Amino acid sequence: MKFASYTHGGTAFYGAVTDDGAIPLSPDFPDWPTLKEVIAAGELATLGDAARGRTASQTDITFLPPIPGPRRIICVGVNFPDRNAEYKDGSQQPAHMSLFPRFPSSFTGHNQPLIRPPESEKLDYEGEVAIVIGKAGRRIKAEAAYDHIAAITLCNEGTIRDWVRHAKFNVTQGKNWDRSGALGPWIVPFIDAAQLDDVHLITRVNGEVRQDDHLANMMFPIREEIAYISTFTTLEPGDVIITGTPTGSGARLDPPQFLKPGDIVEVEATGIGILRNTIEDEV
Amino acid sequence: MKFASYTHGGTAFYGAVTDDGAIPLSPDFPDWPTLKEVIAAGELATLGDAARGRTASQTDITFLPPIPGPRRIICVGVNFPDRNAEYKDGSQQPAHMSLFPRFPSSFTGHNQPLIRPPESEKLDYEGEVAIVIGKAGRRIKAEAAYDHIAAITLCNEGTIRDWVRHAKFNVTQGKNWDRSGALGPWIVPFIDAAQLDDVHLITRVNGEVRQDDHLANMMFPIREEIAYISTFTTLEPGDVIITGTPTGSGARLDPPQFLKPGDIVEVEATGIGILRNTIEDEV
Repeated sequence: MKFASYTHGGTAFYGAVTDDGAIPLSPDFPDWPTLKEVIAAGELATLGDAARGRTASQTDITFLPPIPGPRRIICVGVNFPDRNAEYKDGSQQPAHMSLFPRFPSSFTGHNQPLIRPPESEKLDYEGEVAIVIGKAGRRIKAEAAYDHIAAITLCNEGTIRDWVRHAKFNVTQGKNWDRSGALGPWIVPFIDAAQLDDVHLITRVNGEVRQDDHLANMMFPIREEIAYISTFTTLEPGDVIITGTPTGSGARLDPPQFLKPGDIVEVEATGIGILRNTIEDEV
Repeated sequence: MKFASYTHGGTAFYGAVTDDGAIPLSPDFPDWPTLKEVIAAGELATLGDAARGRTASQTDITFLPPIPGPRRIICVGVNFPDRNAEYKDGSQQPAHMSLFPRFPSSFTGHNQPLIRPPESEKLDYEGEVAIVIGKAGRRIKAEAAYDHIAAITLCNEGTIRDWVRHAKFNVTQGKNWDRSGALGPWIVPFIDAAQLDDVHLITRVNGEVRQDDHLANMMFPIREEIAYISTFTTLEPGDVIITGTPTGSGARLDPPQFLKPGDIVEVEATGIGILRNTIEDEV
Protein backbone atom coordinates (compact mmCIF):
# COMPACT_ATOMS: atom_id res chain seq x y z
CA MET A 1 0.00 0.00 0.00
CA LYS A 2 1.22 3.49 -0.92
CA PHE A 3 -0.13 6.73 0.55
CA ALA A 4 0.36 10.14 -1.01
CA SER A 5 -0.50 13.74 -0.37
CA TYR A 6 -1.76 15.46 -3.49
CA THR A 7 -4.13 17.96 -4.97
CA HIS A 8 -6.99 17.11 -7.30
CA GLY A 9 -9.21 19.75 -8.84
CA GLY A 10 -7.57 22.35 -6.62
CA THR A 11 -8.31 20.54 -3.34
CA ALA A 12 -5.69 18.89 -1.13
CA PHE A 13 -6.16 15.22 -0.25
CA TYR A 14 -4.31 12.28 1.06
CA GLY A 15 -5.11 8.86 -0.21
CA ALA A 16 -3.93 5.51 -1.48
CA VAL A 17 -2.18 5.53 -4.83
CA THR A 18 -2.61 2.84 -7.45
CA ASP A 19 -1.50 2.58 -11.06
CA ASP A 20 -4.85 4.06 -12.09
CA GLY A 21 -4.87 7.10 -9.82
CA ALA A 22 -5.74 7.80 -6.23
CA ILE A 23 -8.35 6.63 -3.78
CA PRO A 24 -9.10 9.70 -1.65
CA LEU A 25 -9.06 8.84 2.05
CA SER A 26 -8.77 12.17 3.85
CA PRO A 27 -12.52 12.89 3.52
CA ASP A 28 -13.17 9.76 5.61
CA PHE A 29 -10.91 10.89 8.46
CA PRO A 30 -11.62 14.47 9.45
CA ASP A 31 -9.75 14.00 12.74
CA TRP A 32 -6.54 13.47 10.78
CA PRO A 33 -6.20 16.42 8.42
CA THR A 34 -2.89 15.24 6.97
CA LEU A 35 -0.74 12.11 6.83
CA LYS A 36 1.25 13.57 9.73
CA GLU A 37 -1.75 13.13 12.04
CA VAL A 38 -2.41 9.65 10.66
CA ILE A 39 1.16 8.72 11.49
CA ALA A 40 1.06 10.39 14.91
CA ALA A 41 -2.05 8.33 15.67
CA GLY A 42 -0.27 5.19 14.48
CA GLU A 43 -3.12 4.50 12.08
CA LEU A 44 -1.55 3.88 8.67
CA ALA A 45 -2.99 0.35 8.84
CA THR A 46 -6.49 1.78 9.33
CA LEU A 47 -5.93 3.88 6.24
CA GLY A 48 -4.95 0.75 4.35
CA ASP A 49 -8.13 -1.01 5.47
CA ALA A 50 -10.22 1.94 4.31
CA ALA A 51 -8.68 1.75 0.84
CA ARG A 52 -9.04 -1.98 0.41
CA GLY A 53 -11.41 -3.09 -2.32
CA ARG A 54 -11.96 0.41 -3.65
CA THR A 55 -10.74 1.62 -7.01
CA ALA A 56 -9.04 4.88 -7.85
CA SER A 57 -11.53 7.66 -8.45
CA GLN A 58 -9.10 10.54 -8.84
CA THR A 59 -6.79 10.74 -11.82
CA ASP A 60 -4.62 13.68 -12.88
CA ILE A 61 -3.50 14.20 -9.35
CA THR A 62 -0.69 16.62 -8.51
CA PHE A 63 1.72 15.13 -5.99
CA LEU A 64 2.81 17.06 -2.92
CA PRO A 65 5.60 16.07 -0.55
CA PRO A 66 3.93 13.24 1.40
CA ILE A 67 4.30 14.82 4.85
CA PRO A 68 3.19 18.44 4.79
CA GLY A 69 5.45 20.73 6.81
CA PRO A 70 7.46 18.29 8.94
CA ARG A 71 8.75 19.95 12.08
CA ARG A 72 12.18 18.49 11.43
CA ILE A 73 13.81 17.37 8.23
CA ILE A 74 17.29 16.16 9.13
CA CYS A 75 19.69 15.11 6.40
CA VAL A 76 22.70 12.88 6.88
CA GLY A 77 25.73 13.98 4.86
CA VAL A 78 28.41 11.80 3.29
CA ASN A 79 27.28 8.29 4.19
CA PHE A 80 28.60 5.83 1.61
CA PRO A 81 32.28 4.88 1.65
CA ASP A 82 32.97 5.49 -2.03
CA ARG A 83 31.41 8.88 -1.80
CA ASN A 84 33.66 9.83 1.08
CA ALA A 85 36.72 8.70 -0.87
CA GLU A 86 35.69 11.10 -3.61
CA TYR A 87 36.62 13.96 -1.35
CA LYS A 88 40.23 13.03 -2.07
CA ASP A 89 41.44 14.76 1.04
CA GLY A 90 42.77 11.73 2.82
CA SER A 91 39.93 11.63 5.31
CA GLN A 92 38.92 8.26 6.66
CA GLN A 93 35.43 7.37 7.73
CA PRO A 94 34.48 10.14 10.14
CA ALA A 95 33.81 9.40 13.80
CA HIS A 96 30.36 10.93 13.61
CA MET A 97 27.86 11.56 10.88
CA SER A 98 27.39 15.02 9.42
CA LEU A 99 23.87 16.39 9.86
CA PHE A 100 22.07 19.36 8.40
CA PRO A 101 18.44 20.43 8.45
CA ARG A 102 16.39 21.40 5.41
CA PHE A 103 13.24 23.46 5.50
CA PRO A 104 10.05 21.96 4.02
CA SER A 105 10.03 24.87 1.55
CA SER A 106 13.10 23.39 -0.15
CA PHE A 107 11.11 20.41 -1.42
CA THR A 108 8.47 19.87 -4.05
CA GLY A 109 6.52 16.72 -4.92
CA HIS A 110 6.84 13.92 -7.45
CA ASN A 111 6.53 14.94 -11.10
CA GLN A 112 7.03 18.61 -10.21
CA PRO A 113 9.99 20.58 -11.52
CA LEU A 114 13.04 21.23 -9.40
CA ILE A 115 13.77 24.93 -9.70
CA ARG A 116 17.17 26.18 -10.87
CA PRO A 117 17.53 29.77 -9.61
CA PRO A 118 19.13 32.56 -11.62
CA GLU A 119 21.90 32.81 -8.99
CA SER A 120 23.53 29.49 -9.93
CA GLU A 121 23.94 26.97 -12.73
CA LYS A 122 25.06 24.31 -10.27
CA LEU A 123 21.84 22.54 -9.33
CA ASP A 124 22.81 18.97 -8.48
CA TYR A 125 20.91 15.79 -7.60
CA GLU A 126 21.36 13.47 -4.62
CA GLY A 127 19.13 10.40 -4.53
CA GLU A 128 18.31 9.17 -1.04
CA VAL A 129 15.91 7.09 1.00
CA ALA A 130 13.97 9.03 3.63
CA ILE A 131 12.28 7.68 6.73
CA VAL A 132 9.29 9.10 8.57
CA ILE A 133 9.27 8.79 12.35
CA GLY A 134 6.12 7.22 13.78
CA LYS A 135 6.88 6.90 17.47
CA ALA A 136 8.47 9.64 19.56
CA GLY A 137 11.70 8.93 21.37
CA ARG A 138 14.84 10.34 22.95
CA ARG A 139 18.10 8.39 23.21
CA ILE A 140 16.65 5.56 21.18
CA LYS A 141 18.87 2.47 21.15
CA ALA A 142 20.05 1.39 17.71
CA GLU A 143 18.54 -2.06 18.30
CA ALA A 144 15.10 -0.50 18.84
CA ALA A 145 15.41 2.21 16.20
CA TYR A 146 13.29 0.53 13.53
CA ASP A 147 10.34 0.46 15.95
CA HIS A 148 10.25 4.24 15.62
CA ILE A 149 9.85 4.31 11.83
CA ALA A 150 6.32 4.60 10.46
CA ALA A 151 7.05 4.79 6.76
CA ILE A 152 9.69 5.25 4.09
CA THR A 153 9.87 7.42 1.01
CA LEU A 154 12.39 8.83 -1.48
CA CYS A 155 14.23 12.10 -1.71
CA ASN A 156 16.06 13.99 -4.37
CA GLU A 157 18.13 16.09 -2.03
CA GLY A 158 18.71 18.73 -4.70
CA THR A 159 21.60 21.03 -3.93
CA ILE A 160 22.91 24.34 -5.24
CA ARG A 161 26.46 23.14 -5.20
CA ASP A 162 28.44 26.39 -5.17
CA TRP A 163 26.36 27.80 -2.31
CA VAL A 164 27.10 24.73 -0.16
CA ARG A 165 30.61 26.08 0.35
CA HIS A 166 29.75 29.75 0.69
CA ALA A 167 30.64 29.58 4.35
CA LYS A 168 33.46 27.78 6.07
CA PHE A 169 31.09 25.59 8.03
CA ASN A 170 27.50 24.64 7.41
CA VAL A 171 25.89 23.80 4.12
CA THR A 172 22.60 25.51 4.98
CA GLN A 173 22.47 27.98 2.10
CA GLY A 174 23.25 25.38 -0.57
CA LYS A 175 20.65 22.97 0.73
CA ASN A 176 17.63 25.15 1.29
CA TRP A 177 16.73 26.83 -2.00
CA ASP A 178 12.99 26.92 -2.47
CA ARG A 179 11.81 23.82 -4.37
CA SER A 180 15.36 22.69 -5.17
CA GLY A 181 14.64 19.13 -4.02
CA ALA A 182 11.79 16.64 -3.96
CA LEU A 183 10.18 14.16 -1.56
CA GLY A 184 7.90 11.33 -2.58
CA PRO A 185 6.19 10.08 -4.58
CA TRP A 186 4.40 8.53 -1.61
CA ILE A 187 5.08 6.88 1.71
CA VAL A 188 5.17 3.12 2.11
CA PRO A 189 4.33 1.80 5.59
CA PHE A 190 7.40 0.30 7.22
CA ILE A 191 6.62 -3.14 8.60
CA ASP A 192 9.69 -5.25 7.84
CA ALA A 193 13.42 -4.53 8.37
CA ALA A 194 14.15 -5.85 4.86
CA GLN A 195 12.35 -2.80 3.45
CA LEU A 196 15.43 -0.81 4.42
CA ASP A 197 18.18 -3.37 4.87
CA ASP A 198 17.88 -4.77 1.34
CA VAL A 199 17.24 -1.60 -0.62
CA HIS A 200 18.96 -0.99 -3.93
CA LEU A 201 19.07 2.77 -4.57
CA ILE A 202 19.60 4.19 -8.06
CA THR A 203 19.58 7.72 -9.48
CA ARG A 204 19.26 8.31 -13.20
CA VAL A 205 19.57 11.51 -15.21
CA ASN A 206 17.86 11.34 -18.59
CA GLY A 207 17.94 7.56 -18.26
CA GLU A 208 21.67 7.33 -17.49
CA VAL A 209 22.58 5.72 -14.17
CA ARG A 210 24.57 8.15 -12.03
CA GLN A 211 24.22 6.71 -8.53
CA ASP A 212 23.86 3.01 -7.81
CA ASP A 213 24.36 1.53 -4.37
CA HIS A 214 22.75 -0.48 -1.59
CA LEU A 215 21.73 0.83 1.81
CA ALA A 216 23.67 -2.07 3.31
CA ASN A 217 26.83 -0.14 2.34
CA MET A 218 26.04 2.91 4.47
CA MET A 219 28.83 3.97 6.81
CA PHE A 220 26.22 4.97 9.37
CA PRO A 221 23.28 2.58 9.09
CA ILE A 222 19.80 4.01 9.56
CA ARG A 223 19.54 2.44 13.01
CA GLU A 224 22.59 4.41 14.10
CA GLU A 225 21.27 7.60 12.54
CA ILE A 226 18.15 7.38 14.68
CA ALA A 227 20.17 6.55 17.79
CA TYR A 228 22.61 9.42 17.27
CA ILE A 229 20.07 12.09 16.32
CA SER A 230 17.75 11.18 19.17
CA THR A 231 20.63 11.65 21.61
CA PHE A 232 20.27 15.40 21.31
CA THR A 233 16.72 15.96 20.08
CA THR A 234 13.47 14.17 20.85
CA LEU A 235 12.26 12.67 17.60
CA GLU A 236 8.54 13.06 17.05
CA PRO A 237 5.95 11.55 14.71
CA GLY A 238 6.20 13.12 11.28
CA ASP A 239 9.89 13.98 11.58
CA VAL A 240 11.80 13.06 8.44
CA ILE A 241 15.36 11.77 8.26
CA ILE A 242 17.02 11.80 4.84
CA THR A 243 19.53 9.06 5.19
CA GLY A 244 22.44 9.88 2.87
CA THR A 245 23.31 9.65 -0.81
CA PRO A 246 25.59 7.24 -2.71
CA THR A 247 28.57 8.30 -4.78
CA GLY A 248 27.97 9.86 -8.18
CA SER A 249 26.52 13.32 -7.73
CA GLY A 250 27.05 15.59 -10.73
CA ALA A 251 29.64 17.72 -8.95
CA ARG A 252 31.95 14.71 -8.61
CA LEU A 253 31.93 13.73 -12.25
CA ASP A 254 34.82 14.76 -14.44
CA PRO A 255 33.90 17.16 -15.88
CA PRO A 256 31.07 18.03 -13.45
CA GLN A 257 27.60 17.70 -14.92
CA PHE A 258 24.94 19.85 -13.34
CA LEU A 259 21.24 19.71 -14.05
CA LYS A 260 19.80 21.77 -16.91
CA PRO A 261 16.25 22.73 -17.79
CA GLY A 262 14.52 19.77 -19.44
CA ASP A 263 16.58 17.12 -17.65
CA ILE A 264 14.68 14.32 -15.97
CA VAL A 265 16.00 12.91 -12.69
CA GLU A 266 14.71 9.63 -11.31
CA VAL A 267 15.46 8.26 -7.86
CA GLU A 268 14.44 4.63 -7.60
CA ALA A 269 14.53 2.21 -4.69
CA THR A 270 13.41 -1.37 -4.23
CA GLY A 271 9.97 -1.54 -2.72
CA ILE A 272 9.32 2.18 -2.77
CA GLY A 273 9.11 3.21 -6.40
CA ILE A 274 10.46 6.02 -8.55
CA LEU A 275 10.59 9.70 -7.65
CA ARG A 276 10.73 11.59 -10.94
CA ASN A 277 11.35 15.29 -11.43
CA THR A 278 12.08 17.61 -14.29
CA ILE A 279 14.25 20.70 -14.09
CA GLU A 280 13.02 24.21 -14.81
CA ASP A 281 14.63 27.59 -14.61
CA GLU A 282 12.97 29.90 -12.17
CA VAL A 283 10.59 32.23 -13.90
CA MET B 1 4.96 47.54 24.78
CA LYS B 2 6.18 43.98 25.33
CA PHE B 3 4.28 40.85 24.35
CA ALA B 4 5.00 37.40 25.72
CA SER B 5 3.78 33.85 25.37
CA TYR B 6 3.36 32.20 28.74
CA THR B 7 1.36 29.80 30.84
CA HIS B 8 -0.66 30.79 33.90
CA GLY B 9 -2.50 28.27 36.02
CA GLY B 10 -1.72 25.61 33.44
CA THR B 11 -3.24 27.49 30.49
CA ALA B 12 -1.27 29.02 27.61
CA PHE B 13 -1.77 32.71 26.88
CA TYR B 14 -0.18 35.55 25.08
CA GLY B 15 -0.40 39.01 26.49
CA ALA B 16 1.29 42.26 27.35
CA VAL B 17 3.91 42.10 30.08
CA THR B 18 4.39 44.79 32.69
CA ASP B 19 6.50 44.96 35.84
CA ASP B 20 3.50 43.66 37.80
CA GLY B 21 2.66 40.65 35.64
CA ALA B 22 0.79 40.02 32.44
CA ILE B 23 -2.36 41.37 30.82
CA PRO B 24 -3.86 38.37 29.01
CA LEU B 25 -4.82 39.26 25.44
CA SER B 26 -5.23 35.93 23.66
CA PRO B 27 -8.78 35.42 25.05
CA ASP B 28 -9.80 38.61 23.20
CA PHE B 29 -8.51 37.39 19.83
CA PRO B 30 -9.68 33.85 19.09
CA ASP B 31 -8.78 34.26 15.41
CA TRP B 32 -5.14 34.59 16.38
CA PRO B 33 -4.32 31.60 18.58
CA THR B 34 -0.64 32.57 19.03
CA LEU B 35 1.62 35.58 18.53
CA LYS B 36 2.61 34.02 15.21
CA GLU B 37 -0.88 34.66 13.83
CA VAL B 38 -0.92 38.15 15.31
CA ILE B 39 2.33 38.89 13.50
CA ALA B 40 1.16 37.27 10.27
CA ALA B 41 -1.92 39.50 10.39
CA GLY B 42 0.30 42.52 11.00
CA GLU B 43 -1.70 43.35 14.12
CA LEU B 44 0.80 43.85 16.93
CA ALA B 45 -0.43 47.45 17.17
CA THR B 46 -4.00 46.22 17.68
CA LEU B 47 -2.71 44.08 20.50
CA GLY B 48 -1.08 47.14 22.03
CA ASP B 49 -4.33 49.08 21.84
CA ALA B 50 -6.17 46.24 23.55
CA ALA B 51 -3.71 46.30 26.44
CA ARG B 52 -3.67 50.03 26.94
CA GLY B 53 -5.12 51.27 30.23
CA ARG B 54 -5.46 47.78 31.68
CA THR B 55 -3.42 46.48 34.57
CA ALA B 56 -1.77 43.12 34.91
CA SER B 57 -4.14 40.48 36.21
CA GLN B 58 -1.88 37.45 35.91
CA THR B 59 1.18 37.10 38.12
CA ASP B 60 3.39 34.03 38.58
CA ILE B 61 3.44 33.47 34.84
CA THR B 62 5.75 30.91 33.25
CA PHE B 63 7.42 32.29 30.15
CA LEU B 64 7.48 30.32 26.91
CA PRO B 65 9.55 31.18 23.83
CA PRO B 66 7.56 34.12 22.43
CA ILE B 67 6.84 32.56 19.02
CA PRO B 68 5.58 29.00 19.41
CA GLY B 69 7.05 26.61 16.85
CA PRO B 70 8.51 28.94 14.23
CA ARG B 71 8.78 27.26 10.85
CA ARG B 72 12.33 28.51 10.51
CA ILE B 73 14.86 29.50 13.11
CA ILE B 74 18.00 30.52 11.27
CA CYS B 75 21.14 31.40 13.20
CA VAL B 76 24.01 33.45 11.85
CA GLY B 77 27.42 32.17 12.96
CA VAL B 78 30.55 34.17 13.66
CA ASN B 79 29.43 37.74 13.12
CA PHE B 80 31.55 40.11 15.19
CA PRO B 81 35.14 40.84 14.12
CA ASP B 82 36.80 40.13 17.45
CA ARG B 83 35.03 36.85 17.70
CA ASN B 84 36.30 35.79 14.32
CA ALA B 85 39.86 36.71 15.35
CA GLU B 86 39.49 34.34 18.27
CA TYR B 87 39.53 31.45 15.87
CA LYS B 88 43.25 32.11 15.57
CA ASP B 89 43.43 30.36 12.23
CA GLY B 90 44.42 33.35 10.17
CA SER B 91 41.01 33.64 8.55
CA GLN B 92 39.88 37.08 7.47
CA GLN B 93 36.30 38.20 7.39
CA PRO B 94 34.54 35.52 5.38
CA ALA B 95 32.92 36.33 2.06
CA HIS B 96 29.57 35.01 3.21
CA MET B 97 27.90 34.50 6.56
CA SER B 98 27.67 31.07 8.12
CA LEU B 99 24.10 29.91 8.71
CA PHE B 100 22.61 27.04 10.64
CA PRO B 101 19.06 26.18 11.62
CA ARG B 102 17.90 25.30 15.12
CA PHE B 103 14.75 23.43 15.95
CA PRO B 104 12.19 25.09 18.26
CA SER B 105 12.71 22.17 20.66
CA SER B 106 16.21 23.46 21.39
CA PHE B 107 14.83 26.53 23.16
CA THR B 108 13.07 27.20 26.42
CA GLY B 109 11.63 30.45 27.77
CA HIS B 110 12.81 33.21 30.09
CA ASN B 111 13.50 32.16 33.69
CA GLN B 112 13.49 28.48 32.73
CA PRO B 113 16.59 26.34 33.17
CA LEU B 114 18.87 25.53 30.26
CA ILE B 115 19.45 21.79 30.39
CA ARG B 116 22.97 20.34 30.55
CA PRO B 117 22.75 16.76 29.28
CA PRO B 118 24.69 13.87 30.77
CA GLU B 119 26.58 13.48 27.48
CA SER B 120 28.61 16.69 27.88
CA GLU B 121 29.93 19.16 30.44
CA LYS B 122 30.46 21.78 27.74
CA LEU B 123 27.21 23.73 27.74
CA ASP B 124 28.10 27.24 26.62
CA TYR B 125 26.22 30.55 26.29
CA GLU B 126 25.94 32.85 23.27
CA GLY B 127 23.96 36.05 23.79
CA GLU B 128 22.24 37.35 20.66
CA VAL B 129 19.50 39.57 19.37
CA ALA B 130 16.78 37.77 17.40
CA ILE B 131 14.37 39.24 14.91
CA VAL B 132 10.91 38.01 13.99
CA ILE B 133 9.84 38.36 10.37
CA GLY B 134 6.50 40.11 9.88
CA LYS B 135 6.22 40.42 6.11
CA ALA B 136 7.00 37.61 3.68
CA GLY B 137 9.61 38.14 1.02
CA ARG B 138 12.09 36.58 -1.37
CA ARG B 139 15.25 38.35 -2.55
CA ILE B 140 14.59 41.23 -0.21
CA LYS B 141 16.91 44.18 -0.83
CA ALA B 142 19.07 45.16 2.14
CA GLU B 143 17.66 48.69 1.97
CA ALA B 144 14.12 47.34 2.42
CA ALA B 145 15.00 44.61 4.90
CA TYR B 146 13.82 46.38 8.04
CA ASP B 147 10.32 46.64 6.55
CA HIS B 148 10.11 42.87 6.92
CA ILE B 149 10.79 42.79 10.67
CA ALA B 150 7.78 42.69 12.98
CA ALA B 151 9.51 42.42 16.33
CA ILE B 152 12.77 41.80 18.17
CA THR B 153 13.69 39.59 21.09
CA LEU B 154 16.73 38.02 22.77
CA CYS B 155 18.36 34.64 22.49
CA ASN B 156 20.76 32.63 24.54
CA GLU B 157 21.96 30.45 21.72
CA GLY B 158 23.13 27.75 24.14
CA THR B 159 25.55 25.29 22.61
CA ILE B 160 26.98 21.91 23.51
CA ARG B 161 30.43 22.90 22.46
CA ASP B 162 32.14 19.55 21.91
CA TRP B 163 29.26 18.29 19.76
CA VAL B 164 29.56 21.33 17.47
CA ARG B 165 32.67 19.78 16.01
CA HIS B 166 31.56 16.15 15.93
CA ALA B 167 31.37 16.34 12.17
CA LYS B 168 33.70 17.99 9.70
CA PHE B 169 31.01 20.34 8.46
CA ASN B 170 27.79 21.47 10.08
CA VAL B 171 27.24 22.36 13.70
CA THR B 172 23.74 20.85 13.82
CA GLN B 173 24.28 18.37 16.64
CA GLY B 174 25.93 20.89 18.96
CA LYS B 175 23.21 23.46 18.42
CA ASN B 176 20.03 21.45 18.76
CA TRP B 177 20.01 19.80 22.16
CA ASP B 178 16.56 19.92 23.68
CA ARG B 179 16.14 23.06 25.82
CA SER B 180 19.82 23.98 25.57
CA GLY B 181 19.02 27.60 24.64
CA ALA B 182 16.40 30.24 25.38
CA LEU B 183 14.33 32.82 23.51
CA GLY B 184 12.58 35.77 25.09
CA PRO B 185 11.60 37.10 27.50
CA TRP B 186 9.13 38.77 25.14
CA ILE B 187 8.93 40.41 21.75
CA VAL B 188 9.13 44.16 21.31
CA PRO B 189 7.41 45.55 18.20
CA PHE B 190 9.98 46.89 15.76
CA ILE B 191 9.04 50.37 14.61
CA ASP B 192 12.32 52.30 14.46
CA ALA B 193 15.70 51.37 12.92
CA ALA B 194 17.47 52.60 16.06
CA GLN B 195 15.96 49.66 17.96
CA LEU B 196 18.53 47.51 16.17
CA ASP B 197 21.18 49.91 14.94
CA ASP B 198 21.97 51.31 18.40
CA VAL B 199 21.72 48.15 20.49
CA HIS B 200 24.27 47.41 23.17
CA LEU B 201 24.34 43.66 23.81
CA ILE B 202 25.77 42.19 27.02
CA THR B 203 25.93 38.65 28.39
CA ARG B 204 26.65 38.05 32.07
CA VAL B 205 27.31 34.80 33.93
CA ASN B 206 26.65 35.05 37.65
CA GLY B 207 26.86 38.81 37.29
CA GLU B 208 30.23 38.84 35.49
CA VAL B 209 30.24 40.43 32.04
CA ARG B 210 31.40 37.90 29.44
CA GLN B 211 30.16 39.38 26.17
CA ASP B 212 29.83 43.11 25.55
CA ASP B 213 29.41 44.59 22.09
CA HIS B 214 27.22 46.72 19.87
CA LEU B 215 25.19 45.50 16.91
CA ALA B 216 26.80 48.29 14.89
CA ASN B 217 30.00 46.18 14.93
CA MET B 218 28.47 43.21 13.15
CA MET B 219 30.42 41.99 10.12
CA PHE B 220 27.14 41.17 8.40
CA PRO B 221 24.54 43.73 9.49
CA ILE B 222 20.99 42.49 10.04
CA ARG B 223 19.84 44.12 6.79
CA GLU B 224 22.36 41.97 4.91
CA GLU B 225 21.35 38.85 6.79
CA ILE B 226 17.77 39.28 5.63
CA ALA B 227 18.86 40.01 2.07
CA TYR B 228 21.18 36.99 1.88
CA ILE B 229 18.87 34.48 3.54
CA SER B 230 15.90 35.54 1.45
CA THR B 231 17.95 34.94 -1.68
CA PHE B 232 17.47 31.20 -1.28
CA THR B 233 14.38 30.84 0.89
CA THR B 234 11.17 32.81 1.07
CA LEU B 235 11.00 34.36 4.52
CA GLU B 236 7.57 34.17 6.10
CA PRO B 237 5.82 35.80 9.06
CA GLY B 238 6.95 34.20 12.31
CA ASP B 239 10.35 33.13 10.97
CA VAL B 240 13.11 33.92 13.44
CA ILE B 241 16.66 35.00 12.61
CA ILE B 242 19.20 34.85 15.42
CA THR B 243 21.66 37.44 14.35
CA GLY B 244 25.06 36.43 15.76
CA THR B 245 26.94 36.58 19.04
CA PRO B 246 29.80 38.84 20.20
CA THR B 247 33.18 37.60 21.34
CA GLY B 248 33.49 36.04 24.79
CA SER B 249 31.77 32.68 24.81
CA GLY B 250 32.98 30.36 27.56
CA ALA B 251 34.84 28.09 25.14
CA ARG B 252 37.13 30.95 24.12
CA LEU B 253 38.21 31.91 27.62
CA ASP B 254 41.56 30.69 28.93
CA PRO B 255 40.91 28.34 30.56
CA PRO B 256 37.46 27.66 29.05
CA GLN B 257 34.58 28.17 31.44
CA PHE B 258 31.47 26.21 30.68
CA LEU B 259 28.13 26.54 32.42
CA LYS B 260 27.43 24.52 35.57
CA PRO B 261 24.24 23.78 37.42
CA GLY B 262 23.21 26.80 39.49
CA ASP B 263 24.83 29.35 37.17
CA ILE B 264 22.69 32.28 36.07
CA VAL B 265 23.11 33.65 32.54
CA GLU B 266 21.68 36.99 31.54
CA VAL B 267 21.50 38.35 28.01
CA GLU B 268 20.67 42.05 28.02
CA ALA B 269 20.06 44.47 25.17
CA THR B 270 19.07 48.11 25.02
CA GLY B 271 15.35 48.50 24.55
CA ILE B 272 14.52 44.81 24.81
CA GLY B 273 15.29 43.76 28.37
CA ILE B 274 17.03 40.87 30.09
CA LEU B 275 16.70 37.20 29.21
CA ARG B 276 17.66 35.28 32.35
CA ASN B 277 18.16 31.53 32.65
CA THR B 278 19.54 29.18 35.21
CA ILE B 279 21.38 25.95 34.43
CA GLU B 280 20.22 22.52 35.49
CA ASP B 281 21.51 19.06 34.89
CA GLU B 282 19.09 16.87 33.01
CA VAL B 283 17.17 14.68 35.39
